[in-house]
Amino acid sequence: MSKSLIIINPNSSTTVTDGIDAAIEPLRSFGVPIKSLTLAAGPKGIESQRQADLTIAPMLTLAAAQADAAGYVIACFGDPGLHALRDQTDLPVVGIQEAAVMTALSLGQRFGVIAILPASIPRHLRSFGAMGVLDRLAGDRALGLGVADLASADKSLSAMIATGKALRDTDGADVLIMGCAGMAQYRQLIEDATELPVVEPCQAAAAMALGHIALRQSHRKTKNAV
Amino acid sequence: MSKSLIIINPNSSTTVTDGIDAAIEPLRSFGVPIKSLTLAAGPKGIESQRQADLTIAPMLTLAAAQADAAGYVIACFGDPGLHALRDQTDLPVVGIQEAAVMTALSLGQRFGVIAILPASIPRHLRSFGAMGVLDRLAGDRALGLGVADLASADKSLSAMIATGKALRDTDGADVLIMGCAGMAQYRQLIEDATELPVVEPCQAAAAMALGHIALRQSHRKTKNAV
Amino acid sequence: MSKSLIIINPNSSTTVTDGIDAAIEPLRSFGVPIKSLTLAAGPKGIESQRQADLTIAPMLTLAAAQADAAGYVIACFGDPGLHALRDQTDLPVVGIQEAAVMTALSLGQRFGVIAILPASIPRHLRSFGAMGVLDRLAGDRALGLGVADLASADKSLSAMIATGKALRDTDGADVLIMGCAGMAQYRQLIEDATELPVVEPCQAAAAMALGHIALRQSHRKTKNAV
Amino acid sequence: MSKSLIIINPNSSTTVTDGIDAAIEPLRSFGVPIKSLTLAAGPKGIESQRQADLTIAPMLTLAAAQADAAGYVIACFGDPGLHALRDQTDLPVVGIQEAAVMTALSLGQRFGVIAILPASIPRHLRSFGAMGVLDRLAGDRALGLGVADLASADKSLSAMIATGKALRDTDGADVLIMGCAGMAQYRQLIEDATELPVVEPCQAAAAMALGHIALRQSHRKTKNAV
Amino acid sequence: MSKSLIIINPNSSTTVTDGIDAAIEPLRSFGVPIKSLTLAAGPKGIESQRQADLTIAPMLTLAAAQADAAGYVIACFGDPGLHALRDQTDLPVVGIQEAAVMTALSLGQRFGVIAILPASIPRHLRSFGAMGVLDRLAGDRALGLGVADLASADKSLSAMIATGKALRDTDGADVLIMGCAGMAQYRQLIEDATELPVVEPCQAAAAMALGHIALRQSHRKTKNAV
Amino acid sequence: MSKSLIIINPNSSTTVTDGIDAAIEPLRSFGVPIKSLTLAAGPKGIESQRQADLTIAPMLTLAAAQADAAGYVIACFGDPGLHALRDQTDLPVVGIQEAAVMTALSLGQRFGVIAILPASIPRHLRSFGAMGVLDRLAGDRALGLGVADLASADKSLSAMIATGKALRDTDGADVLIMGCAGMAQYRQLIEDATELPVVEPCQAAAAMALGHIALRQSHRKTKNAV
Repeated sequence: MSKSLIIINPNSSTTVTDGIDAAIEPLRSFGVPIKSLTLAAGPKGIESQRQADLTIAPMLTLAAAQADAAGYVIACFGDPGLHALRDQTDLPVVGIQEAAVMTALSLGQRFGVIAILPASIPRHLRSFGAMGVLDRLAGDRALGLGVADLASADKSLSAMIATGKALRDTDGADVLIMGCAGMAQYRQLIEDATELPVVEPCQAAAAMALGHIALRQSHRKTKNAV
Repeated sequence: MSKSLIIINPNSSTTVTDGIDAAIEPLRSFGVPIKSLTLAAGPKGIESQRQADLTIAPMLTLAAAQADAAGYVIACFGDPGLHALRDQTDLPVVGIQEAAVMTALSLGQRFGVIAILPASIPRHLRSFGAMGVLDRLAGDRALGLGVADLASADKSLSAMIATGKALRDTDGADVLIMGCAGMAQYRQLIEDATELPVVEPCQAAAAMALGHIALRQSHRKTKNAV
Repeated sequence: MSKSLIIINPNSSTTVTDGIDAAIEPLRSFGVPIKSLTLAAGPKGIESQRQADLTIAPMLTLAAAQADAAGYVIACFGDPGLHALRDQTDLPVVGIQEAAVMTALSLGQRFGVIAILPASIPRHLRSFGAMGVLDRLAGDRALGLGVADLASADKSLSAMIATGKALRDTDGADVLIMGCAGMAQYRQLIEDATELPVVEPCQAAAAMALGHIALRQSHRKTKNAV
Repeated sequence: MSKSLIIINPNSSTTVTDGIDAAIEPLRSFGVPIKSLTLAAGPKGIESQRQADLTIAPMLTLAAAQADAAGYVIACFGDPGLHALRDQTDLPVVGIQEAAVMTALSLGQRFGVIAILPASIPRHLRSFGAMGVLDRLAGDRALGLGVADLASADKSLSAMIATGKALRDTDGADVLIMGCAGMAQYRQLIEDATELPVVEPCQAAAAMALGHIALRQSHRKTKNAV
Repeated sequence: MSKSLIIINPNSSTTVTDGIDAAIEPLRSFGVPIKSLTLAAGPKGIESQRQADLTIAPMLTLAAAQADAAGYVIACFGDPGLHALRDQTDLPVVGIQEAAVMTALSLGQRFGVIAILPASIPRHLRSFGAMGVLDRLAGDRALGLGVADLASADKSLSAMIATGKALRDTDGADVLIMGCAGMAQYRQLIEDATELPVVEPCQAAAAMALGHIALRQSHRKTKNAV
Repeated sequence: MSKSLIIINPNSSTTVTDGIDAAIEPLRSFGVPIKSLTLAAGPKGIESQRQADLTIAPMLTLAAAQADAAGYVIACFGDPGLHALRDQTDLPVVGIQEAAVMTALSLGQRFGVIAILPASIPRHLRSFGAMGVLDRLAGDRALGLGVADLASADKSLSAMIATGKALRDTDGADVLIMGCAGMAQYRQLIEDATELPVVEPCQAAAAMALGHIALRQSHRKTKNAV
């Protein structure tokens, strides 16, 4: 049986998982099976570093249980447990934030990030600093919607477009990153409205992971790390 | 009853905790009680990002149980759970790695880090990148000792001094950071041998935390983060 | 007789010195005497690099005359003579700008600076560049008040709050630094109005210096530098 | 007829083109035809910025002539004409240097580059600066071989391994990039000898380009740029 | 016969060449002849990386034909072929963009760039990244004029002044760079209107080149690069 | 009477001043008189930040007394009082360190600095950080000579060449800066021995200042700064 790319959604929302699975549909033609899993132990949504960190233990367990894994994608923008899972396995492990940034850097000179909540911006900045890519960051802006409005597809899309335009016009972004998993259905609409390339992070991560799998390309696991 | 600064050693070694407690002894004159706790659920030592991340959940629980806390120090070089704990409390929370770096930056122009194990260097670099201080890093070098040799105080001290001299002479460090908790007894000896200031991270963190407590200075907890 | 932390206000305003002395009052509980001195030879206020540089010679003389010094704080945002005094003594020497930045870096991801005058911003930027912390700078904004308005406590406070909010909302700061000595009485009010942590630089510097003194932590004086 | 990924080797060596074509063989399973073309007008090898720049005009012509192109890879480490071709087409255009770096950044914290000739290092550094990734660069080292020795597979491989080990041991690289096209046959051998992941740039670029094609992901061509 | 500084305008507009020649008039007093040449094979104006790159081959030929050259200036903001020409000759070669930036860095702390077209900004940013000077960049803003309006001297000047003020007031620039050759007649007017120093890049480059010539200061040509 | 470029040597050694005056001889052909002055109140040599800072007050007085000044060069590597003098006059003011760096950045991709004494390296690094050019620094190395050996021209030259070669071979410098005034007589010899371009800072500064004077190019003095 062929091994699969395992995508783990570390929140417990199957709606998000379904959205991720739809997002990566165009990559199924590459011939490697892709499975999208939901972390039942995760929170409904990940809105703080604390929530993100608390998904790591169950995510590592879920990952370890996938006997047919050819590689992993951790599908939360924030990449919780990315390096912990790399300590646990020498299969390819891709974080959607890291992959989105690396993809965006090949599509424009300065990337803008559409964040859902303002509180996630300091977390993003810590990550971009750890990645060493702050010279390429145009800006990171939140939608400015309350929880109720986020439930509305129309309001979310409008806010994403408005945020993308602010990143483009005020901050000078020439490529955008959607700072959240599970919203790939808006990618084309934001591209059309902003006339900028838009990176959907789960797509970027799955594409990168499939490349790693085909090329037998992976990190080196720290010896005796587990 | 007076509130206390709580220092949490996230590994399970009471020897390390005792060393931390001795290290901060000179700061007891400041008049704020300081308690050093051991995370019983932690590993014997923290040698990977995976081990570090897995201490976060029990550390958060232990921290939450300290009713008399005036502030916290997380005493593992790597600062596991630093931002998660800041999401959980609005009391001051100081990580020993962050505090050691900020202290070193006021004592020299380029800091060198004495790491215990080579595998921790990429983790350090991710943190220094997130802190935005890589322009001030002279180098990060590991002792080059096996586990058996690390158990020998003589061999450890010799290796720390040799590493400090390499950081000074080859990498251009003019201040050193001990990249590990619980070894404060060597600080003066390394200072004498290298003629450079040496920052012991638990001391640096406790001093910073006591300042924050006296000045009622803290981060702002993300709203609804817990 | 117990040695003292010496704080030198390098301008000649005793009002400013009194403000500094009040600001560090909460740190007197640490048990180390703190003396706040005025540099009689200094200008009324320091508004240019030229004025700052001209305080160095008399400041060095004043510092050298303090027989009971346990350490020094140079209390001008701009840190004039910081490294010159470190060449002169191997006691701890802390600059309020440097200490404020290092403190802010442990309280938020991007710091904003409330400058009094626009002309000081290039000086600040040179310092932040020398410190290697520009990746963490959100912005540096001046109050936009004329000299007459600066004499009004009400107008100053309003402008500081408005500037803090601009740093937060336009520049993305999540921690603020007051870019001037002697205004600690406004710290809490700015914190309340902006809901951000605010670092008062004299407090930050005195706390850091007291930690250095307790821990016998200092730079290494250049040999034969004097 | 299905559209193809077009890989252009901008030097005139068909041996190099054949090596590139073999390198990307594992990616043919993705289902998109891949054609490797040789730039007949190119020099035998590209050893200077001048030679690189002079390939751009004929490369743009060759690229424009590929009616069935689904995307392009420019297969010279140095990415000559990368942005010029992006001005000419809105199909995906990937440079092997850029793709190699972005891939390496997801496999280790600091990348080392195995350069063929010392004269190419300043060119690399200009590119890495333009990419904004210098904080992640461990080192860039040349093989130190003369032209005659470069013709020997044994000597080349030995020098690549020695250079990789120097990048790892002296410079702290934890991932390596082969700084040249057409040498993929050595990738596994260098990985085995250095125990580090090794990125072959043509593989990295082709994988990235195939992802872009599948996801309909591209830059936005500057309007009226041609 | 005395050797000359050769300035090459890589577009085919003799009006631009005449403007460049007038701009450097004050430097003729230095005693070195200065010749301003037009690249007949160049486009009317250079508006994309593609156009810039395509000037390199004929520019190198034109440069090689100047038997009496004492040094070269490439007079397009974007410095096309700068390093290629340095590979071809060991006479001094100065690019107007590079020289303008280096000059601006000695006149203010943060430079702002007045770009003609928005599409040139990503190109500028790649160059500033390669130069390693992004920490000093305040902003890069385009005039926001259409082609018709650019033909109007009045509208161009007004837009340049408005852009300069935005760079000063919104972005914090304290020195401005004119991001285009051939507009030196506006320099003084922009200085007067913005009260900031303004660097005209052809002037900056010619001054630097004359210094290099007098001091016999040049790069070292890569051996065998041609 | 024609105005002059004033070069101030802030140490009291007329031998050094004579060396500076000889160094800029080739620039006298530019037609602007150049006067080299010695700061009688300066120390014999400047070996610490403290000594450097203490030259500022008398240097400002000396500069103010030059009625025929067309511009100034401060001829100490460290640029003491550079910004203070810019506050005092709106004539061009050039520091030799700043000018040397800006010149070197146009001659190579990574500059190496030949420092006289190890204690000056942290000072250099602070300056390079303030200039924002650390990404271009290859290394900064001291001669390793004692005071007695520094008096020997042969030993000094040998040490400068050895240091230059170490900067080239170990640190990757492709352009060198002499980190001291008054040693221009060695420039050509170091160039010949290292086969790298060598920047003598007084030459670089005088050339830049003459360009500024001819082009009426200067900083804007802070209003009311004096």
